[in-house]
Amino acid sequence: MSSQADNVTMTGEYWLAVKGTMDVIAAAAPMVLDAVAATDLEHDDSAFCFSDMGCADGGSSMSLVRSVIGAVRERCPSRQITILYTDQPRNNYNALFRLVHDAAGSSLKSYKDEFDRLYVHAAGTSFYEQMMPDQTLDLGFSSTAMHWLRGKPVDIPDHVHAVGASGDALRRIQAQASRDWELNLLNRAREMKPGARLVLANFCRDEQGRYLGNTVGVNMFATFNELWLEKLERNEIRADEYERMTLPQYYNDVDEFSAPFSDSSSAVRSAGLVLEHMETKVVECPYRADFDRHGDVEQFVESYVPTLRTWSESTFFGALSVERSAEERQTLVDEFYAAYGDRVRSDPSAHRMDYVHAYIKVAKN
Amino acid sequence: MSSQADNVTMTGEYWLAVKGTMDVIAAAAPMVLDAVAATDLEHDDSAFCFSDMGCADGGSSMSLVRSVIGAVRERCPSRQITILYTDQPRNNYNALFRLVHDAAGSSLKSYKDEFDRLYVHAAGTSFYEQMMPDQTLDLGFSSTAMHWLRGKPVDIPDHVHAVGASGDALRRIQAQASRDWELNLLNRAREMKPGARLVLANFCRDEQGRYLGNTVGVNMFATFNELWLEKLERNEIRADEYERMTLPQYYNDVDEFSAPFSDSSSAVRSAGLVLEHMETKVVECPYRADFDRHGDVEQFVESYVPTLRTWSESTFFGALSVERSAEERQTLVDEFYAAYGDRVRSDPSAHRMDYVHAYIKVAKN
Repeated sequence: MSSQADNVTMTGEYWLAVKGTMDVIAAAAPMVLDAVAATDLEHDDSAFCFSDMGCADGGSSMSLVRSVIGAVRERCPSRQITILYTDQPRNNYNALFRLVHDAAGSSLKSYKDEFDRLYVHAAGTSFYEQMMPDQTLDLGFSSTAMHWLRGKPVDIPDHVHAVGASGDALRRIQAQASRDWELNLLNRAREMKPGARLVLANFCRDEQGRYLGNTVGVNMFATFNELWLEKLERNEIRADEYERMTLPQYYNDVDEFSAPFSDSSSAVRSAGLVLEHMETKVVECPYRADFDRHGDVEQFVESYVPTLRTWSESTFFGALSVERSAEERQTLVDEFYAAYGDRVRSDPSAHRMDYVHAYIKVAKN
Repeated sequence: MSSQADNVTMTGEYWLAVKGTMDVIAAAAPMVLDAVAATDLEHDDSAFCFSDMGCADGGSSMSLVRSVIGAVRERCPSRQITILYTDQPRNNYNALFRLVHDAAGSSLKSYKDEFDRLYVHAAGTSFYEQMMPDQTLDLGFSSTAMHWLRGKPVDIPDHVHAVGASGDALRRIQAQASRDWELNLLNRAREMKPGARLVLANFCRDEQGRYLGNTVGVNMFATFNELWLEKLERNEIRADEYERMTLPQYYNDVDEFSAPFSDSSSAVRSAGLVLEHMETKVVECPYRADFDRHGDVEQFVESYVPTLRTWSESTFFGALSVERSAEERQTLVDEFYAAYGDRVRSDPSAHRMDYVHAYIKVAKN
């Protein structure tokens, strides 16, 4: 899960706090290896380029990258390979390079020294821009990143996330999400070699209306909203602060992901992209699964709440007025997550952050 | 000046602490632009690739990179360009990407938004390895980085730097430096396209025996050594700690830089590399030049000693026994630089860290 997490990613090992994303990537691996299998590796002298777009510190995809390199080398033992990690400019690239070069003292072993003629590069460019030269990408991958919009078109007046928005606010966010998805695909189309593929594991609203933190039990985003509303009602935060608590995210449904491909005259189709496959999958919350085994409520709270925090804290912190001191803002945010922990304690079996993704394979003709 | 400077580069803006390196790069700029002029830009559809090898946070070379892009675009307005920054795995890539994407709040403006079809990538791979695929580099640049050896073949028993070494220790360091210089060039030869060039501003011992911090006045490395010897004599550090205070660096002279090119059957010549030009230049210590204007001794000490510290502190800290607490080690290092400051106070006009570089242009046939 990329971005927005400066205050978390600057310390510790990010991938450890988002270990569910490893399961999400494991679920995408067969589709990625199918894409390698479908690539004509034998008639191209240039380096095979694999990109992890929205890589964070590279920990979650370490095993997948190793598998991709292995699959390419099995067929073409001497083929040069470039791995291009990309994320936003404020990602933690220090953590990324230390992990990949085994200089982090991490328990996660890198693939880097297992192969020769392998070049690991990074870019700090958003996937809403072109990140590499034309027709240099063989296989693009992204997991749990492309729900971040270029920006917020509107502050949702009565919720913290588009999943709870309605009316004009929802329409404006949907319009932005639609433009952003197309822009993302058009940039990828320029980067991809003919015959290249994208495999994307993107957060979605699935055919049953499920989405991240809303499968069975309580709705995580509703809980977020209720807890901030409580602070508003107690005058602990102001109305403008509550409104700014809008995560710049949108979860497309299957129709929205398909839309740019459905019309043969569309910009995306004209750029050569075709949708080869899409399916939705739910990956179980690993912290909840652990809890079901050990039954220790405190241990559940102490592992579960931090994983929510990784990707939501900076938005909530940023919504609080700069007229407050940094300490005061941090206290409010700490209280918010403490209150979330209390909700979990009071009814642990109702809480889980299952991942709901669309697994999408796109080819360039 | 790359590497070895984790404790400095993790905070603040590194380039501000090494502003003399901007002057060094300015002195190299004509040679770099000559190299662009000599490149056949018009008959290559791939992205033009410029690499800054040993980039640190990219601040020192920002203006040069802008000039290179401008020179390429003047002749080929639509040519795609990749900038590949490289350094060791523990470099501060966060600072690099923030500076280049204007996300650091820095006074130094990036070139990034001034051009389109421009891709900025980074690699965390040492220049003693291949950093990018075969024949993809058009113009490689490095300033004040390639004096760092792959490692120390020996601890110098009676000095902190090869410039003060003799006998067997010196011979072993020279042998390592010779192998490292050849290894560096052979890796570059694989990366370079035919017709590509390298421009390197490398620390050297010049034709008059001058080198960094040893032009006129006191010898900086001799001062380093005297101050650590004082601590040894006072039993504040141990003999094994003093010996480990060996900077893993070597300054080649002009003959040593030329050696791999002098024999037409050498590995480097066989790889297609030819030495087009070499000259040595002295760039004045900017902190001393400031002092000559303002005359304020304290201001001189407070700007001068930190610039020595940027590249030497981690070696000295690392030489102190791990049996000491981190606080104790830091105190010893702080005392050392404080003593250096006292030396400057007692005779300020004798101190300066002038830069002495060989400016080297290499072409690949």
